[in-house]
Amino acid sequence: MFTLHLSPGACSRASHIALAESGLAYTLKRVKFAEAEQRSEAFLKVNPKGRVPALETEHGVLTENVAILAYIADTASKAGALLAPADPFAFARMQAFNAYLASTVHVAHAHGRRGARWADQASSHADMLARVPGNMRDGFRLIEDEFLAGPYAMGEQYTVADAYLFVMSGWLKSDNVDIAEFPRVAEHFVRIGARPAVKRALEEEASL
Amino acid sequence: MFTLHLSPGACSRASHIALAESGLAYTLKRVKFAEAEQRSEAFLKVNPKGRVPALETEHGVLTENVAILAYIADTASKAGALLAPADPFAFARMQAFNAYLASTVHVAHAHGRRGARWADQASSHADMLARVPGNMRDGFRLIEDEFLAGPYAMGEQYTVADAYLFVMSGWLKSDNVDIAEFPRVAEHFVRIGARPAVKRALEEEASL
Repeated sequence: MFTLHLSPGACSRASHIALAESGLAYTLKRVKFAEAEQRSEAFLKVNPKGRVPALETEHGVLTENVAILAYIADTASKAGALLAPADPFAFARMQAFNAYLASTVHVAHAHGRRGARWADQASSHADMLARVPGNMRDGFRLIEDEFLAGPYAMGEQYTVADAYLFVMSGWLKSDNVDIAEFPRVAEHFVRIGARPAVKRALEEEASL
Repeated sequence: MFTLHLSPGACSRASHIALAESGLAYTLKRVKFAEAEQRSEAFLKVNPKGRVPALETEHGVLTENVAILAYIADTASKAGALLAPADPFAFARMQAFNAYLASTVHVAHAHGRRGARWADQASSHADMLARVPGNMRDGFRLIEDEFLAGPYAMGEQYTVADAYLFVMSGWLKSDNVDIAEFPRVAEHFVRIGARPAVKRALEEEASL
């Protein structure tokens, strides 16, 4: 049994969708960002970083989407659900795809609302915010033209990278980027959003 | 045979050290940042992101340290070199460790010299630069107190996470943080730096 600590709308949604796709048993715990619960003593014992996602497992707590997604896929594969390529190089390519979302795309997005992580002045935060649409466009231009193999992120097979890309694509609107600029990404976003497991995860998130 | 595209002093050093530790055959190609070679047509064909590291393999190009390090470890394990835990959860923890270095620590560091990625104004860049030591301290405080299992990053066994941590620890000085604030990290940095493969990788880098 897994317990996923998440916040609705945050990047934890990727790990949540992966769990929903996996067929593995899980429960959810909402971390209330509005009440700064991620900085509470109780949550810092789960994840000293004070961030979501954090996945409680029978072996201990796992953090970082890149690691959690791969671990869910690995665990699911032993239960018969295929959420990652079996070939080692194809798996590594999926990890590279996910690592790009984590360390470039998510970071580009975070400069809009989380500028206080990296600068103090209001003028700096405004400057950062103004760059968000362009930086998100740069990232999604590469995804559209180079990385999104199609129809799924890594090609013919659905993988946990699709869940992660779906979450990042869903942030474009609030970053003032029209997803229609990237037709293949837009098509992917609609198709992944129609999956029963994704619908179920979004319903679960909304009900927390 | 692997070909690693790198720049001396950049985070590509982590993948380079992993190759040196692996016993696998590799060659190096320097990407000359001073000549903006990472934006050249030739290099963008290798890695459209215009970044290092990029690892050419017989199957294609792999990017992102998190993915490259795991792939080198996986390939090395088939040749008898143990550079990652065999246990799936322990492996996932290593991936979480590396993902934290990539998406939090490296990003914190990059705000010192690469602020133009996220903001336009000189005042914003100065503001970001001023926050770098504090943000690096926050990251290394967690590494020191929570994540560095000791004696190696993940415990008793050397893994590719040690190569990556070694590179990030080596950036503290230029970020105006005294590594001595973090005694366990400092001890790790010295011990990893004394490994023959690390010395060889640094010599190879200097000779490029």
